[in-house]
Amino acid sequence: MTKRYWEDFEVGKLGEFGRKRVSAEEIKEFAAVFDPQPMHLDEEAARTTPVGGLCASGWHTCGMMMRMIADGFLLNSSSMGAPGVEEVRWLVPVRPGDELTVRATVLGKKASGSRPDLGFLDMFFEVINTEGTCVMTTRTNLMLARRAADAPKGMAPA
Amino acid sequence: MTKRYWEDFEVGKLGEFGRKRVSAEEIKEFAAVFDPQPMHLDEEAARTTPVGGLCASGWHTCGMMMRMIADGFLLNSSSMGAPGVEEVRWLVPVRPGDELTVRATVLGKKASGSRPDLGFLDMFFEVINTEGTCVMTTRTNLMLARRAADAPKGMAPA
Repeated sequence: MTKRYWEDFEVGKLGEFGRKRVSAEEIKEFAAVFDPQPMHLDEEAARTTPVGGLCASGWHTCGMMMRMIADGFLLNSSSMGAPGVEEVRWLVPVRPGDELTVRATVLGKKASGSRPDLGFLDMFFEVINTEGTCVMTTRTNLMLARRAADAPKGMAPA
Repeated sequence: MTKRYWEDFEVGKLGEFGRKRVSAEEIKEFAAVFDPQPMHLDEEAARTTPVGGLCASGWHTCGMMMRMIADGFLLNSSSMGAPGVEEVRWLVPVRPGDELTVRATVLGKKASGSRPDLGFLDMFFEVINTEGTCVMTTRTNLMLARRAADAPKGMAPA
């Protein structure tokens, strides 16, 4: 596959990536290290919490989303990372046995004002579960190198 | 320690929590599962990236922050979770050997309009490294049970 630069992305739906099956073991493993709250850590304890049963830490879902984004298109792009995330919405608990995919949409494109070798993609990501329900959304600005940035000095297209 | 309810939190600085020492092994382990980009995965490959060396995935830093928040005050509170995150800013790369702490500030408090047993805390978290530099900030609304919610029906304070 040809590596994709900022110029190669168009505003609109980019694609649907994944799928990732979530296991109870993974949920509890992540929670033990990063988010040891009862609803993420133990089936029995989770039953008495407001979510009524074991569910993944929201940060775990962020991680699983990131992996699907990376494998889906980011590792094959000129990505330079992201300065942050505009918002994360945890809408529906992620349960053991769920199979997740990510729907990626380019909401907007903007060339960098200060760096001619850089562009931004205003991205919207939806994490979808087995039933087709959106369990999480995030919005973030990805930084990507522009195609000209790889050309030798003085060889950049006009 | 007495469990803290929504009423027990005051607007202003809540405290500084942690500390968490970050190892190269942890950075690479997290990246292998959730964010396999060269700058998080391998020292050699990371040298040729814009960040110039191995650094933690931003989502890994989110996870480490969450753990310090949980241990610091959340597990000993009436927390009911969070509907999401308003923003995340990754300001400075987190490097192997960094020791992180979290500074937590309550920016505002709001009782729930629809649920008398619930309140919100508008929280600002800053992750600080060994040099005292802020490497990441997040802003989020925490949901906490109100004290009266534990009282038997009809026994709630006036």
